[in-house]
Amino acid sequence: MNNSTADKLTVGVVGGTGYTGGELCRLLLGHPAVEVILPTSREPRPFAHTHPNLRGSGLEFRPVERLEEQADELDVVFFCTPSGEAMNRVGHFLDHGVRVVDLSADFRFRDVDRYQRVYGREHAAAHLLPEAVYGVTELNRDRVRDARLIANPGCYAITAILALTPLLNGGFVDLTSPLSIHATNGTTGAGTTPKKAIMHAEVAESMLAYSLEGHRHGPELEAFLANAIQGPPVRVDINTAHGNFARGIHLQANAGLRQRLDRDQLLETFTAAYGPGHEGEHFVLVNDVPKQGGVNEKEYDVYPSLGHVVGSNFCHLGVDVDRARGIAKVVAVTDNLVKGAAGSAIQNMNVMFGLDETLGLRTYAL
Amino acid sequence: MNNSTADKLTVGVVGGTGYTGGELCRLLLGHPAVEVILPTSREPRPFAHTHPNLRGSGLEFRPVERLEEQADELDVVFFCTPSGEAMNRVGHFLDHGVRVVDLSADFRFRDVDRYQRVYGREHAAAHLLPEAVYGVTELNRDRVRDARLIANPGCYAITAILALTPLLNGGFVDLTSPLSIHATNGTTGAGTTPKKAIMHAEVAESMLAYSLEGHRHGPELEAFLANAIQGPPVRVDINTAHGNFARGIHLQANAGLRQRLDRDQLLETFTAAYGPGHEGEHFVLVNDVPKQGGVNEKEYDVYPSLGHVVGSNFCHLGVDVDRARGIAKVVAVTDNLVKGAAGSAIQNMNVMFGLDETLGLRTYAL
Amino acid sequence: MNNSTADKLTVGVVGGTGYTGGELCRLLLGHPAVEVILPTSREPRPFAHTHPNLRGSGLEFRPVERLEEQADELDVVFFCTPSGEAMNRVGHFLDHGVRVVDLSADFRFRDVDRYQRVYGREHAAAHLLPEAVYGVTELNRDRVRDARLIANPGCYAITAILALTPLLNGGFVDLTSPLSIHATNGTTGAGTTPKKAIMHAEVAESMLAYSLEGHRHGPELEAFLANAIQGPPVRVDINTAHGNFARGIHLQANAGLRQRLDRDQLLETFTAAYGPGHEGEHFVLVNDVPKQGGVNEKEYDVYPSLGHVVGSNFCHLGVDVDRARGIAKVVAVTDNLVKGAAGSAIQNMNVMFGLDETLGLRTYAL
Amino acid sequence: MNNSTADKLTVGVVGGTGYTGGELCRLLLGHPAVEVILPTSREPRPFAHTHPNLRGSGLEFRPVERLEEQADELDVVFFCTPSGEAMNRVGHFLDHGVRVVDLSADFRFRDVDRYQRVYGREHAAAHLLPEAVYGVTELNRDRVRDARLIANPGCYAITAILALTPLLNGGFVDLTSPLSIHATNGTTGAGTTPKKAIMHAEVAESMLAYSLEGHRHGPELEAFLANAIQGPPVRVDINTAHGNFARGIHLQANAGLRQRLDRDQLLETFTAAYGPGHEGEHFVLVNDVPKQGGVNEKEYDVYPSLGHVVGSNFCHLGVDVDRARGIAKVVAVTDNLVKGAAGSAIQNMNVMFGLDETLGLRTYAL
Repeated sequence: MNNSTADKLTVGVVGGTGYTGGELCRLLLGHPAVEVILPTSREPRPFAHTHPNLRGSGLEFRPVERLEEQADELDVVFFCTPSGEAMNRVGHFLDHGVRVVDLSADFRFRDVDRYQRVYGREHAAAHLLPEAVYGVTELNRDRVRDARLIANPGCYAITAILALTPLLNGGFVDLTSPLSIHATNGTTGAGTTPKKAIMHAEVAESMLAYSLEGHRHGPELEAFLANAIQGPPVRVDINTAHGNFARGIHLQANAGLRQRLDRDQLLETFTAAYGPGHEGEHFVLVNDVPKQGGVNEKEYDVYPSLGHVVGSNFCHLGVDVDRARGIAKVVAVTDNLVKGAAGSAIQNMNVMFGLDETLGLRTYAL
Repeated sequence: MNNSTADKLTVGVVGGTGYTGGELCRLLLGHPAVEVILPTSREPRPFAHTHPNLRGSGLEFRPVERLEEQADELDVVFFCTPSGEAMNRVGHFLDHGVRVVDLSADFRFRDVDRYQRVYGREHAAAHLLPEAVYGVTELNRDRVRDARLIANPGCYAITAILALTPLLNGGFVDLTSPLSIHATNGTTGAGTTPKKAIMHAEVAESMLAYSLEGHRHGPELEAFLANAIQGPPVRVDINTAHGNFARGIHLQANAGLRQRLDRDQLLETFTAAYGPGHEGEHFVLVNDVPKQGGVNEKEYDVYPSLGHVVGSNFCHLGVDVDRARGIAKVVAVTDNLVKGAAGSAIQNMNVMFGLDETLGLRTYAL
Repeated sequence: MNNSTADKLTVGVVGGTGYTGGELCRLLLGHPAVEVILPTSREPRPFAHTHPNLRGSGLEFRPVERLEEQADELDVVFFCTPSGEAMNRVGHFLDHGVRVVDLSADFRFRDVDRYQRVYGREHAAAHLLPEAVYGVTELNRDRVRDARLIANPGCYAITAILALTPLLNGGFVDLTSPLSIHATNGTTGAGTTPKKAIMHAEVAESMLAYSLEGHRHGPELEAFLANAIQGPPVRVDINTAHGNFARGIHLQANAGLRQRLDRDQLLETFTAAYGPGHEGEHFVLVNDVPKQGGVNEKEYDVYPSLGHVVGSNFCHLGVDVDRARGIAKVVAVTDNLVKGAAGSAIQNMNVMFGLDETLGLRTYAL
Repeated sequence: MNNSTADKLTVGVVGGTGYTGGELCRLLLGHPAVEVILPTSREPRPFAHTHPNLRGSGLEFRPVERLEEQADELDVVFFCTPSGEAMNRVGHFLDHGVRVVDLSADFRFRDVDRYQRVYGREHAAAHLLPEAVYGVTELNRDRVRDARLIANPGCYAITAILALTPLLNGGFVDLTSPLSIHATNGTTGAGTTPKKAIMHAEVAESMLAYSLEGHRHGPELEAFLANAIQGPPVRVDINTAHGNFARGIHLQANAGLRQRLDRDQLLETFTAAYGPGHEGEHFVLVNDVPKQGGVNEKEYDVYPSLGHVVGSNFCHLGVDVDRARGIAKVVAVTDNLVKGAAGSAIQNMNVMFGLDETLGLRTYAL
């Protein structure tokens, strides 16, 4: 029997050994409406050896096949697997009335051809693509509420979407040139498989770009934004790098302006979009510290700093304008494992089950 | 009496207490053609207390007025002062036959109005602007050789110039949109004055954008590039941030292409510009590791990593193309205090005095 | 009117601008039994500018004098002030029936002479020293329950106490030599006042010892431990350094053994002291990963790593024995701002008000 | 024909792919008396792909067998192999008149039984142990000069030896208790083999102890020190950890004092041992910044900071006394790959070939 809104939830986590799976377990352990957490793993290592930060939690791994047998006990299952795995297992859970949040890329495209082009493989469950809801909660809340299957957005994609949507919705952007995204991600974004390039001695005091021929989140972003504005095609020039930190995305989105705007006007636009303070979106906050310096003076507190959100589900936004060149600048910072993955997934779960959207996610950054 | 090429040099360093001044002293201490190093400071602290890494070097500070009195003993003087100071002191040294390398911004613009607009102050030595040579050694070697006064480039500017020049010279770039520069600098770039925003506890595991309304190196870059290509005006959208590391600039330059090009064609262009291995420019090297993965796979070693140059005078370059969107991508990494400041300054000194250009600068990165 | 157990608490935070005050506010914001949080500051800066990670929380600073006027509305007040301030203000709050948790050193010594010797100042409220309870919750729970005034332990002291008590209580330690403590603290431990030595560019990739002539937490530790074992005087050789990280204490405690013991026997001793998993102390956990390698092989997961506790109220412990030299080794890791300060303070508050001791503190480390 | 002092040297580097081998190549590239550098590797990867920081150097790998065939062309060969390999190959080179510096542990013990006990394997070249010279250049210069075979010291060992020798030689130390060594090493000390525990995402903002049952450098240290003082056995309690930095050792050595001493007396002892400034040992410098604060005040510049030596061959020393407990404190910082490995090896090479001892090693830290 699956749970109703009133009872506490029983939750499966397929793929519990990676950084995303571990983070999901960490957040679910503090969620007041979650009773049972069932992570899966193929390895025999005890849970506390894989996730020493969760020592004392009492969680234990089981094989995914065991979780599949338990489907009738589950309310919701999260997939934290590499792309290409969820598509083979999601149907079983849906058939047993379990809601699914897939944190991989398997259900992010409506268009199966696009999926196949970007990910280089056949899609094994294309019939489910039409009903999958792309889970940017803030912008898709109504559809999330009724979804059986959520495609949780990519970490770069959700951060860029929150940064760009107010600009695009305001009609300010000249779409004849590509939008420009530069994002720096922590090394947790590179996964848990040991490789020399992401060892500490290599990354310390360094920074390294990757996938400049076009990151997979680019097409995901283009598809979502074009759909959102229902206008002309949107092209996104996405540039990704790993920084010398473990967690978080520091993203800068630049867009050519169709009209003259100043920073205050942009601040108003963003505040209107996400609401001031408590009253608007709980997790999307705009840094409105006024600029006080003279021409070209460095002011470090007028944009959000990545550290202000690490460990939390918040997205902080900052804005400015290069007036001489007519370019809007948006800075967006998120924790790649929280707002960029496990936190958004839980936010979506909260909405799906009619819970307070912030439940289990109220922690502020360190 | 000032030195000739054959003898060892006596060198002044005005403003020896900051990161740039300290780095210049560090490099000069290892320079086989430098005999005497005379750094200045207004503070009474002993040199080894200000620069504990140079303990044992025997260097000592003196007031700048004392150095001015010694002008006749000097061959060259470097200014590592905040912008606005060199312009008041350079004339005295030039009058005594001392060559000058100014690491501040005072002599970087030919156009005095532009200087005044960007830096918000009157220029006290505008009559010297016409003879000042902008010291990107690789691109301006002949003029450097005969200069009395070198304007050493800004750290962002020189890194961007080395990244963009081969693209622009090849005529590949669509100049109707601005060139896009995203650069992340270490915290030594923020200077030695204690401020909360750049304390370790604030920056650790963080990243913070600044000056998005337009960094002062933007106009410097636009002026140089426009002059170099002798074509239409060049607009540069420059975006700057501090990363969670002490030294180095990781810069990405993106440019819309006028024609279809692939990565191999770009590699050829850059290799032709800077020469393969030893035979070309000693300090500008192109990462030509071939890409082997399939579609959209992450390959971490095909672009330069910042760590590969920190502590050295090298600029490593990497290239790629986003073919779907027609955008050339260049990654350039330098040490902001070496190639971006003190190293370039010494490279210019070597050329000015007819020395081997690499003298004192042959150290590879850690 | 002051609150009773059943109602939600109104809480004052004197000294809300530093790292400890900010962390206390952060944790209190997630505490389900806390209704109102009233932080004080002398500065006019808005709360969200001082603590950008708490943007959206709605908290606001007030002057401490305003808080004193509100004493009748408060249930408990925390002092996060530099040592020497709480002693002047605590009396007022106690007189109004407000319970006090002092996170500074003012009430940590019973012996007023010792306080004056270690801190070099007169004590302004010596009459309160006898009733102050030293708040290591795990070891002093009964006295904390009834206290009006808690002296919250120093961050090094509480970490060392949790590491050493099982050894001392077991009677294993040869006390003729000093106990040896080496602890590395994050840079948040150095406070928020900007100084060159703790700027990012200075600390990155570095490590620096300080106060080797004897840190102030040494006498605090000696007094507590001697009292705890009711035996001979305990001497503690304490060595402190700042590491290249923002938060956390990595502490190693070494003690000469009076008898032959092996690692398994120590593990039993510590597990008996703090209880296995859930059943014992919630916040003190022992790493019991078995050693599998051969002689002298490196095994990185048999002791706790600092990262496993950062951001949480946990203290993880690991043990080993240098059998050739008869020395017990204990590794203890805590977050200096949580278990070492604000977390312990809230844990004490929970006990004082009859709440579940883990309330508001159940978050696991990132 | 092997080189004489006058000519430039041809140098082999067996095991050129690790951090030590790469660092040795880096330093040799800047050595004015080295002409040819021949690194070996079993892998087919080009040199510049393995060591991207040395791109442009023109070095190339060859198999070790090829180097063995070239023995007659070599002046000196360095072994940067894991322990257990050099012992099988050193004889061949010695037989061809090539001098050998072994950076592994194979020849560090005179006593073959001790080697076998500590390293758990038979020694394949025990007959060479008597002639191997333990290469702490500063303390063993005369024997190094005439050696055919140098056992380069372990990184922890050489740092501790430089810290402790003046104390022991002064007769100040109470040897009835073990000497206490706490050392934190960078992650380059963990080698280049990818392991999860040393990935960036695991180590960032963390610190982890290892080998607390007794690190292999402990017996190496005990043997050297006992021999040096020709007194009673010396016991060393050595504690090792990895810090959140790539390079360097921050070591604290504590010793119980037989008599009352203050910091100034210790400073005199250390300055007498290593000489003031230029006149004494070039690479061993004592931080003599006077303490100015009151009781127990933090002063961050009176001891050396790790960052002051990273990238250089220097060892900086600082001293203090815990007078209440009669304990001498020594802080020693080195770069584990330079003074702790490749730098010392070159320093020994310089002495062996009658070169200026500082040749190729004069670079100061960044």
